[in-house]
Amino acid sequence: MDRPAEQIRADLGALADKPHVAATLASLGQPGSAARIPTPAAVIDLDAFERNLARMAARAKAAGLALRPHSKSHKTVAIARRQVAAGAVGVCCAKLAEAEAMAAGGVASILITSPAAGPLWAMRAAAVASAVPDFRIVLDHADAAAELGAAAQGPIQVLIDVDPGMGRTGVRDADQALEVFRAIAAQPKLKLIGVQCYGGSWQHMEGANARAAAVADGMARLKAVIAALREAGAVIEVVTGGGTGTFEADAAQGVLTEVQPGSYAFMDREYRDALKDDPDGAFEQSLAIAATVITTNQPTWVTVDAGLKAFSTDGPLPVPLTPKFAGVAYRYFGDEHGRLMRPEGQPVERGERVDFVPPHVDPTLDRYDLIHLVRGDVLVDIVRVEARGASQ
Amino acid sequence: MDRPAEQIRADLGALADKPHVAATLASLGQPGSAARIPTPAAVIDLDAFERNLARMAARAKAAGLALRPHSKSHKTVAIARRQVAAGAVGVCCAKLAEAEAMAAGGVASILITSPAAGPLWAMRAAAVASAVPDFRIVLDHADAAAELGAAAQGPIQVLIDVDPGMGRTGVRDADQALEVFRAIAAQPKLKLIGVQCYGGSWQHMEGANARAAAVADGMARLKAVIAALREAGAVIEVVTGGGTGTFEADAAQGVLTEVQPGSYAFMDREYRDALKDDPDGAFEQSLAIAATVITTNQPTWVTVDAGLKAFSTDGPLPVPLTPKFAGVAYRYFGDEHGRLMRPEGQPVERGERVDFVPPHVDPTLDRYDLIHLVRGDVLVDIVRVEARGASQ
Repeated sequence: MDRPAEQIRADLGALADKPHVAATLASLGQPGSAARIPTPAAVIDLDAFERNLARMAARAKAAGLALRPHSKSHKTVAIARRQVAAGAVGVCCAKLAEAEAMAAGGVASILITSPAAGPLWAMRAAAVASAVPDFRIVLDHADAAAELGAAAQGPIQVLIDVDPGMGRTGVRDADQALEVFRAIAAQPKLKLIGVQCYGGSWQHMEGANARAAAVADGMARLKAVIAALREAGAVIEVVTGGGTGTFEADAAQGVLTEVQPGSYAFMDREYRDALKDDPDGAFEQSLAIAATVITTNQPTWVTVDAGLKAFSTDGPLPVPLTPKFAGVAYRYFGDEHGRLMRPEGQPVERGERVDFVPPHVDPTLDRYDLIHLVRGDVLVDIVRVEARGASQ
Repeated sequence: MDRPAEQIRADLGALADKPHVAATLASLGQPGSAARIPTPAAVIDLDAFERNLARMAARAKAAGLALRPHSKSHKTVAIARRQVAAGAVGVCCAKLAEAEAMAAGGVASILITSPAAGPLWAMRAAAVASAVPDFRIVLDHADAAAELGAAAQGPIQVLIDVDPGMGRTGVRDADQALEVFRAIAAQPKLKLIGVQCYGGSWQHMEGANARAAAVADGMARLKAVIAALREAGAVIEVVTGGGTGTFEADAAQGVLTEVQPGSYAFMDREYRDALKDDPDGAFEQSLAIAATVITTNQPTWVTVDAGLKAFSTDGPLPVPLTPKFAGVAYRYFGDEHGRLMRPEGQPVERGERVDFVPPHVDPTLDRYDLIHLVRGDVLVDIVRVEARGASQ
């Protein structure tokens, strides 16, 4: 075990009192305990996870890129800490509430990657900025700069978010960028340090060449915006963006100074399908969703206890990771159950454990309060997903 | 407000300390506070919700059926209490962890509607049975009866789960039912009180006639199993099943003694699409997922802060509930965002609030830690979704 059971229990707070969690805590460190985790459960194979962290850190170092993993994938302070210990400069957070949770957990360098709006956002952003030693936030509108400048308690580092062409967030062109730049420059407490350009839709494109073409297109747009900002007097030190799927192309383009991958630490079916045979896909499946067979009354399939509430359902279907069930078809069987075909010639028992590759890691982990960390067949730690549901 | 702010705050526990929750608590009871809830958020219109509860209670009473709403839809003790106060006999829970949360909240009559298996289930079921004045659980295998009988601390009421023909859980036929009955009879602490037969796949069939035909088919199977059990000496007092979509057909068949609807209290897009013009669909949309416009840089659409993590994605797409955006298309824009087309001829501002009809209520509410209760434009209460994620 990596830390004392008493500390694990204390960090879980009220969750430690739930009957199934209390029972699981009692088995910590025991041989075979990994197989007895109450399901459905998020389970990380620490050996594979650590190899993934080391591999991405080495790739970033070799490419001369700062590594700032995205905590929207895991929402977990303990994971963020391990990423920083393995060479990351800090984390990205998708939303304010996620950053508030990371800040409460002591993460010292945080970039918020989404613009925000509404009655409370600037006050909350200013408060979390004061609590984090190295805080950064993106803006994509002049009004947002005015709101944040008015709420700021001290200096706040900001970046201009640049739309990579997908139209989700960010300024569309140099004119909009210059407008935001002037609004930032008018706020004494805001300090522009760079730009962000993240192509979310590029990450899962199948084929390294297709992803490289999309990146090249987006980076050409970004370079034009950066040139216009510099001409207007902006100092652009940080150029942040990129994800697990576009690392090779981002490194080759040489525009980014910092990358924001998230899924590389865990992997999922979407990435496995899209990146197979790519250097970008050279990460191990460290995350499993564990399930249990609860009904064996049917001749051709069994029912497991993991359904629509156990997985994200925006991607492909979950696939079994447990070797006995390799290649066996799963489908959703309502909110709380899944249907798993019987593997040929092998009996399946009530109570049998089956692990699955999740379809899409980020919205899947966002369904779990806890992540179970295992080494071999031993459950060595249980950590809280502090920012679960923190999309506000 | 229905209860004092201090009590609301105390019941939220550690959640009350999150910055956006603390700010929201400070606005409780103020005019216009409903419009300032940080988003994405689950929001219930109490007036519509209370009319839904009263309407289903009246239908059940008129049909002579006990009403046992399913807490898998809401996972929230405060909602369960309101359902019981409005005439329900207790609640259904899908899983043990859900029942443990309802029991901890003081719900006095609980039926667990899924069979369970694995190393801890019988111990946990026996523990929760001891804590709940009127506890009931379904079984669908002889081994489960033996396991529960061995773990039982006192008498436990059990029901035999009968497969309605979808093959998810339950005994397939009279022979399997008799096997489970004999295993129950061999356990002195287990008391058979009835059977369960729930056709989950029937609930969203479009057209009352299609649903009635499916119910008739399933009830014919169920009647044969009940007859065989009674012939073998079983006392079958409770026949439980049915959902929001099949109430009329269930009442007409006259086999059930108790119904288990869940979605009627909230409604969602799946039910609205399938049950329109039916008596089964005569419930109001009381639940909204509230979102905020965070980017307005594009000419034809805006970006809201609710994406794949804010909704269930197994059903149809969310649709706007806010009148200004009626009929306007939403699509997912990644984990944390949605793309909403601009309504014709009406400007949309950064920070504007947009409410949505969720696609499928159960897996959507299971993403939220809190439900905001509003009356008119006033936020009157915030309740914890205690059993959120409790699928173990």
